[in-house]
Amino acid sequence: MTDAHLDSCVTEVWQLLEQIGQDTADSPGITRAAWSRNEEMAAERVRAFARRHGLQALNDPFGNVHVLLPGVDPATPCVTTGSHLDSVPHGGNYDGLAGVAAGLAVLAAANADPASRGKSFRVVGLRCEESPWFGVAYLGSRLMLGLSSLDEIGDLVRSDSGKSLRHHLEQLGYPRKGETTAPRLDAKLVTSFLELHIEQGPLLEADVLPIGIATAVRGNVRFPEARCIGAYGHSAALPRRFRQDAVLAVAELALGLDQFWKDRIARGDEDFVMTVGKFSTDAELHAMTKVAGEVTFSVNLGAAVKASLDAARIHLFDLIKKIEKARGVTFELGREVGTPPTQLDERLVALVEDTATTLGIANRRMPTVGHDAAMFVKAGIPSAMVLVRNAHGSHNSNEALERQDFAAGVRVLGRAMHRLAVRGE
Amino acid sequence: MTDAHLDSCVTEVWQLLEQIGQDTADSPGITRAAWSRNEEMAAERVRAFARRHGLQALNDPFGNVHVLLPGVDPATPCVTTGSHLDSVPHGGNYDGLAGVAAGLAVLAAANADPASRGKSFRVVGLRCEESPWFGVAYLGSRLMLGLSSLDEIGDLVRSDSGKSLRHHLEQLGYPRKGETTAPRLDAKLVTSFLELHIEQGPLLEADVLPIGIATAVRGNVRFPEARCIGAYGHSAALPRRFRQDAVLAVAELALGLDQFWKDRIARGDEDFVMTVGKFSTDAELHAMTKVAGEVTFSVNLGAAVKASLDAARIHLFDLIKKIEKARGVTFELGREVGTPPTQLDERLVALVEDTATTLGIANRRMPTVGHDAAMFVKAGIPSAMVLVRNAHGSHNSNEALERQDFAAGVRVLGRAMHRLAVRGE
Repeated sequence: MTDAHLDSCVTEVWQLLEQIGQDTADSPGITRAAWSRNEEMAAERVRAFARRHGLQALNDPFGNVHVLLPGVDPATPCVTTGSHLDSVPHGGNYDGLAGVAAGLAVLAAANADPASRGKSFRVVGLRCEESPWFGVAYLGSRLMLGLSSLDEIGDLVRSDSGKSLRHHLEQLGYPRKGETTAPRLDAKLVTSFLELHIEQGPLLEADVLPIGIATAVRGNVRFPEARCIGAYGHSAALPRRFRQDAVLAVAELALGLDQFWKDRIARGDEDFVMTVGKFSTDAELHAMTKVAGEVTFSVNLGAAVKASLDAARIHLFDLIKKIEKARGVTFELGREVGTPPTQLDERLVALVEDTATTLGIANRRMPTVGHDAAMFVKAGIPSAMVLVRNAHGSHNSNEALERQDFAAGVRVLGRAMHRLAVRGE
Repeated sequence: MTDAHLDSCVTEVWQLLEQIGQDTADSPGITRAAWSRNEEMAAERVRAFARRHGLQALNDPFGNVHVLLPGVDPATPCVTTGSHLDSVPHGGNYDGLAGVAAGLAVLAAANADPASRGKSFRVVGLRCEESPWFGVAYLGSRLMLGLSSLDEIGDLVRSDSGKSLRHHLEQLGYPRKGETTAPRLDAKLVTSFLELHIEQGPLLEADVLPIGIATAVRGNVRFPEARCIGAYGHSAALPRRFRQDAVLAVAELALGLDQFWKDRIARGDEDFVMTVGKFSTDAELHAMTKVAGEVTFSVNLGAAVKASLDAARIHLFDLIKKIEKARGVTFELGREVGTPPTQLDERLVALVEDTATTLGIANRRMPTVGHDAAMFVKAGIPSAMVLVRNAHGSHNSNEALERQDFAAGVRVLGRAMHRLAVRGE
């Protein structure tokens, strides 16, 4: 698996990436809803690319795509890579898909090199990593790794369609009849997991580094559908002391969390993050001339250190109590979802870091955000991540990735997988 | 015009009020959009009630209803009362309509009394007082009083239909062909204007008083369609210093205005009010996992004292500059609308107050909120207002008015109009 081999495969998977981006355009940006026609189109192009390069492409019962070198029994323990096929609504093309494409490049290059041909490499193209679709993240990898069952989550409803996960699986024809099904993966079948993903943040750009080596996946505490209930009232006739203003109440909550964040940064903690990404008065009932009687909003707290997350969660509840009392409103936070912070495997992290450095590719260690890798760790699988510099962050239509940075990432990923699967490190 | 006469007419107009409430129900509450089928239904019931009681009912070219005693030339200078027929979306039944009904009760009673029969009383049922429909308030009275022309405002678009004011007027067939048209009103034809309106605030309830005598109409500075533009970004990967969070920016603006309000109250100023009634992230682009790149919102500042309003407006712009700098966002406040504060006519205010007190009806003076009366003042017409206690405020579906409080208001209105139109005070 020479650099020249890898680079030529990068050229081909780059075309695949661009093609899928065009197929799933949804101005602004692209949309690949979980278990949608668009996500399925991406899966189909991945399978076709694999077969065109002589690789095996299998589906598991949940529509996750598994790609192996020819002649490798799907039940062989493998060094595994991959990422997800879905996107957020009107997101960018690279968040997730770049990791699947990188894995395809590595396997295509491995298949072309006698030294690695027939070795135990696997790529997975996962469904539904993004949380907007069902309010919970990582559903494809949860199902694939047996961390959740269809009995448990099959009735979750997709936000855009109003239909259940089970319904969408059936619509797409999974599990496929008369087709060899990929085995359920577990710690026995995945000797290690390496995920390549765009950074999504500006730190690598700011530091002028193409590659980041993730040390931990931030956990989060999330309230996707929180509400604050006040009382509608006349915007001029109602004195301040009689108001139950839901806008001011949620504004105070959001700024209270922002102040908590500022205080942590001031104390040198650069890990914690918080976002109120949704904040809406009721389009049917609100008016410029009415005090807002209701606001729906989301809260997303993140940290790589569990103690930070716990402290933020407690602060959230303290703020709510204080604001309810001061403003005569009621908060209904709704269901709480999220995942605990995940430390990546130190041996693998060091191996990936050493690989990049040996290749002469400048890099730094950094914590990262929620990724499928967190589920592999949860399943007891040693995992690490290669982060690739990209402009404009992600989860937005301006998401950008330079092809040469992607190529650097593929080299690091390919070499590291080679060390694990061929050299047995 | 005895109390017994007035009370019997109150019974009849109360039924009219209830009937129109049922006709225009739109759960929760009622909706009578400006120049809509529902508002027209209310106008039609008002005209029918007037004719049933032997009164003249005319339309002006803008669909405002004018009711006069029989035999009175429509071009006679009259003591005039009335209020508006429209409501906010999902509002209550009494905001506006109660004042039209009160005027009908007074004229029906005047017509039944030889002492007042044939005297110069007028009731107007006005269109489009509420601002949600066209973003600007008082359009019916503006047109009726010649303060705005159709050339100037006919192209304004109604928020729910997307169609112009001119289009809706045409749809309803105004001006009506072959029908006597009510004259354009001005200071010559309106010797004085008295408007009865529900209080809309909780002060009369809190003070256990059925009647308030308005001293001034609060003016306002309004931005119906303001925007804050930040940048969408990943909710976990984007460090705080890189964020351009539109939710936090508008939250800070709203709380900054709330703090300004608190400071004024602390200094003994109970006049100023502020409301951010609309606050919404983009339903297409927002997500729990994205920093919000845009928020649309409204700002409504009110005060009966112009200096307060000016100070608040300056504070708003100062806050915006500060927040733009600190948070890397841009505010686009959009069009500014509003009306200056309006002092009511002291002689008329004193006459109404004296009338209530003489009737033994407990009352207090207080400033009030935006009403059509402000337009009559603008047109140079001496004006005053009778405010009636009501529960649950207004601009919401729980708006409530006790029939006995309404009856007290009608007595004050009827006696005051009698003093002006019959006794020539």
